[in-house]
Amino acid sequence: MSQLWSPAVRSLTPYVPGEQPTERLIKLNTNENPYPPAPGVAQALRDYATDHLRLYPDPASRALRQTLAETMGVGIEQTFVGNGSDEVLAFAFQAFFCHAAPLDVPDITYSFYPVYARLYGIELRKHALDDDWQVDLDALSASGERSGVILANPNAPTGHAHSLQALEALLERVTDRVVLIDEAYVDFGAESAVALVERYPNLLVTGTFSKSRSLAGLRLGYAIGAVELIDALERVKDSFNSYPVDRLASAVGIAALEDKAHFDACRNNVMATRERTVSRLEALGFSVLPSKANFVLAQHPRFEGAQLFAGLRERGILVRHFNTPALANFLRITIGTDDEMDGLVEALKALCG
Amino acid sequence: MSQLWSPAVRSLTPYVPGEQPTERLIKLNTNENPYPPAPGVAQALRDYATDHLRLYPDPASRALRQTLAETMGVGIEQTFVGNGSDEVLAFAFQAFFCHAAPLDVPDITYSFYPVYARLYGIELRKHALDDDWQVDLDALSASGERSGVILANPNAPTGHAHSLQALEALLERVTDRVVLIDEAYVDFGAESAVALVERYPNLLVTGTFSKSRSLAGLRLGYAIGAVELIDALERVKDSFNSYPVDRLASAVGIAALEDKAHFDACRNNVMATRERTVSRLEALGFSVLPSKANFVLAQHPRFEGAQLFAGLRERGILVRHFNTPALANFLRITIGTDDEMDGLVEALKALCG
Repeated sequence: MSQLWSPAVRSLTPYVPGEQPTERLIKLNTNENPYPPAPGVAQALRDYATDHLRLYPDPASRALRQTLAETMGVGIEQTFVGNGSDEVLAFAFQAFFCHAAPLDVPDITYSFYPVYARLYGIELRKHALDDDWQVDLDALSASGERSGVILANPNAPTGHAHSLQALEALLERVTDRVVLIDEAYVDFGAESAVALVERYPNLLVTGTFSKSRSLAGLRLGYAIGAVELIDALERVKDSFNSYPVDRLASAVGIAALEDKAHFDACRNNVMATRERTVSRLEALGFSVLPSKANFVLAQHPRFEGAQLFAGLRERGILVRHFNTPALANFLRITIGTDDEMDGLVEALKALCG
Repeated sequence: MSQLWSPAVRSLTPYVPGEQPTERLIKLNTNENPYPPAPGVAQALRDYATDHLRLYPDPASRALRQTLAETMGVGIEQTFVGNGSDEVLAFAFQAFFCHAAPLDVPDITYSFYPVYARLYGIELRKHALDDDWQVDLDALSASGERSGVILANPNAPTGHAHSLQALEALLERVTDRVVLIDEAYVDFGAESAVALVERYPNLLVTGTFSKSRSLAGLRLGYAIGAVELIDALERVKDSFNSYPVDRLASAVGIAALEDKAHFDACRNNVMATRERTVSRLEALGFSVLPSKANFVLAQHPRFEGAQLFAGLRERGILVRHFNTPALANFLRITIGTDDEMDGLVEALKALCG
């Protein structure tokens, strides 16, 4: 490590994203949508007046935010957009969680949260999942000094989602700091807490176009919350990059939001395939955590996660294996098309037979 | 301000970008290129296989970096790309300048630098420009503890560029910390310090696709430097957003880099128009600082900057006026097409006549 680096950079432990293979594989490792984006997206690109790219985008991304606001049933001033929900989350950590007290977080959740905490010098107070692998909302909202609360709902990589009623109970107890609910996977069967932002001025909901809108390659994410919270995100964003959302991303994002029929068809397909896949995995002896997301977390009583991961990789199927004690026995499997899941089940049959 | 915010957010003073007007104006305020991007850009968008957008991009942006490396005559491992050079600069501030000692910076330069410094808690040591409105390299490299040196070359908003020889003298004196040379405007007549990165392991050069590649609306920027410096940028990026460069930006960026003829034609046009414009402004009584950028900084002995700015705005022409004591008398005027500059000169003739 270099004397030229800032000292803090030496202690960073960067997030490691799932592999993006260059060979042809059945790719079930990074929770991408198996269906293409809305047909309007291709049209938007074909029709795009390329000359406009010479001009900076609207720094406030008003057109995209207006469409997002209409889609979500909120006001444009309650919306924020960024270059992927990862960027939106990073801004939120900096805007809300940089206090002396620790941030309450489940111990098993999106593994980027500890990376942001390290980047911004935020202490984490980790709470174990309960016996059913669910986020323990009582522990997260226990009284005490805190910088905030963050949870993913549905949680990753477990897939479990709490009801709005359960989340409201948490919001009734934590009122002095921001409660951030990360809804990256909400469209695959969970209830959105966006319905609660009017009543809870400290609730920030984040979401992404990567999963249910089939636009992981575009990098678009959002936050919904009270104007006061959006203001803080804008202050951080305007101190970092005036224009994080480019003109093409805005045009494509609008086209995706406008096609509700395509959105519903794709997510309904994913949910139906998920339920079929769960039954078939269970028939092979797997135990599968109940999931409201576009992935399932599954383990087999007789085979280790790493062993199955390697066996699937040899057969041209890529899933995600987390090399941590709590998750070492599991595979996280993205829900693909029915054909892809057939391939997965056949391969697992051969491996576990 | 809110108790829900992180305390530091309250003290941020966000950067204020130039206005992006919605009405039709002659827009000479944010240093955009008046010419469209390379024809290959439109082709790349028309041909883009939209289905690929459902997949995450390559987190390392290898295809774009390979093309950039070939364009710049360096190795791919000496390149870094981000979501606009603003993001690249932000990462660099965090990666290199977070030390106890202050960062040496010209007092008149890109006004985002103090914003980054505030965001990351970095103290600035500002050095006045010399009597010719040039960056004082001796002052910047005077001995003493520092966290680094940053300068824009050409500088903004003055347009002056130092020779490579002058920059080398600075690099011979500052060897223990990073020297960041921001080359956003280098392609309009200055020499690039990329030629020096092999010899100076502490030199980081940043650049953008926004100006000379006509892609301000796309958000693509880069850094070139020693592997050790690129590693630090990657650590920060991977702790913030695994995939800051989306698939469309990568495809479009490659198309732009591959068309050298278009690139040269556009920048040569801008330079020729700049020289004509300077002569005509001088004929109207303006003094114009010599510029190697796609803008000029000009003042009139009898009219205040704010007054001329307002008069031009009324006539449908938007330029940039900085409301700071040192620059209050100046206008910063982007070089547009010959027709646009005709419009500007006519309007100024009416205003100053």
